Amino acid sequence: MTETATARRSRITPEREAELYAAVLDLLREVGYDALTMDAVAARTRSSKATLYRQWGGKAELVAKAMRHNKPGADIGSVDTGSLRGDLHALVMSTDDCAMEQNNALMRGLAMAVHGNPDLLKAFRELIIEPEMLEIRRVVQRAVDRGEVRPDNPAVDYVVHMFVGAFVARGMIEDQPPTQSFLRSYLDAVVLPALGVSTSL
Amino acid sequence: MTETATARRSRITPEREAELYAAVLDLLREVGYDALTMDAVAARTRSSKATLYRQWGGKAELVAKAMRHNKPGADIGSVDTGSLRGDLHALVMSTDDCAMEQNNALMRGLAMAVHGNPDLLKAFRELIIEPEMLEIRRVVQRAVDRGEVRPDNPAVDYVVHMFVGAFVARGMIEDQPPTQSFLRSYLDAVVLPALGVSTSL
Repeated sequence: MTETATARRSRITPEREAELYAAVLDLLREVGYDALTMDAVAARTRSSKATLYRQWGGKAELVAKAMRHNKPGADIGSVDTGSLRGDLHALVMSTDDCAMEQNNALMRGLAMAVHGNPDLLKAFRELIIEPEMLEIRRVVQRAVDRGEVRPDNPAVDYVVHMFVGAFVARGMIEDQPPTQSFLRSYLDAVVLPALGVSTSL
Repeated sequence: MTETATARRSRITPEREAELYAAVLDLLREVGYDALTMDAVAARTRSSKATLYRQWGGKAELVAKAMRHNKPGADIGSVDTGSLRGDLHALVMSTDDCAMEQNNALMRGLAMAVHGNPDLLKAFRELIIEPEMLEIRRVVQRAVDRGEVRPDNPAVDYVVHMFVGAFVARGMIEDQPPTQSFLRSYLDAVVLPALGVSTSL
């Protein structure tokens, strides 16, 4: 985001911004990304299209920011239990199964829309995937600093891949959204052993 | 598949069947699943629609069978190197990067179409995912029988999830199809350590 964009955004109150993002996600659930128009967002939120474009640049950025804003559960970077296992389990427990299912459905819709929309792919990557990866890296880096994980463990580069597998394969294979109990079991069976962390604590 | 369907299928020569599957995949690449019609398949393959329906039951089953038939590389069940690491690396090496990219694009298109098409989801699961999981289970079971993997290792249930993560996240995060070198690195960093198999051979 440019500094100019930040300055512009600051003219909206956080409450108004949250209201607007919620309306965007409602529309996304109702009609999907491709059928969602800036006109509909403007009408639903009683704002002008000019304001929406000035604040967010376009539909892709607006949708990605709304998804990012809506991210359920704790900010992974703010969790610090003193162990990697504690941090990852706390992260999973911070989102209840219902919110996880809703978020998963939105993400799936967006992931499908991404393929025909290079703008959305760019926004999705810059505003959702990269910040998420940075946060996970911070948590893992703390484990490296504590001596829990070896700095040269090659699985450090694949933590996000492992999580993506849990979310996507769960839907594909078991036809179910990920749940807290599934994710905790996957953490102990896959993520932590790959990182060389004992799960028999 | 019912016995009746098997008996019916046997009236087609394997060459003719392969030709027909190839035509279905060509059409799938050209127009995508939703726009693919049985009329187009019949025209392209100079067969009657009645024959197609009698042999395959419907579009979803025909497409899933074509995907399954086209699966690049070795049949994972036929690989037996004597070690789990050897088997999994051999599997990865049996598909070159070009075939992997083509297959990945087809699978992605199909995975997207699956959400609006319950018939396709059912065919996809029964004809592609379940046989694949059975084969992977066989390879892992051999490793358990050899004493390489503990029978109660909980990661045994998640081998497919780990692979799915490698394929999907690679595209999402790195914007690249999986390659042999990426998959070999992921096997050694994630899959084998989670299964408790040493990769420092």
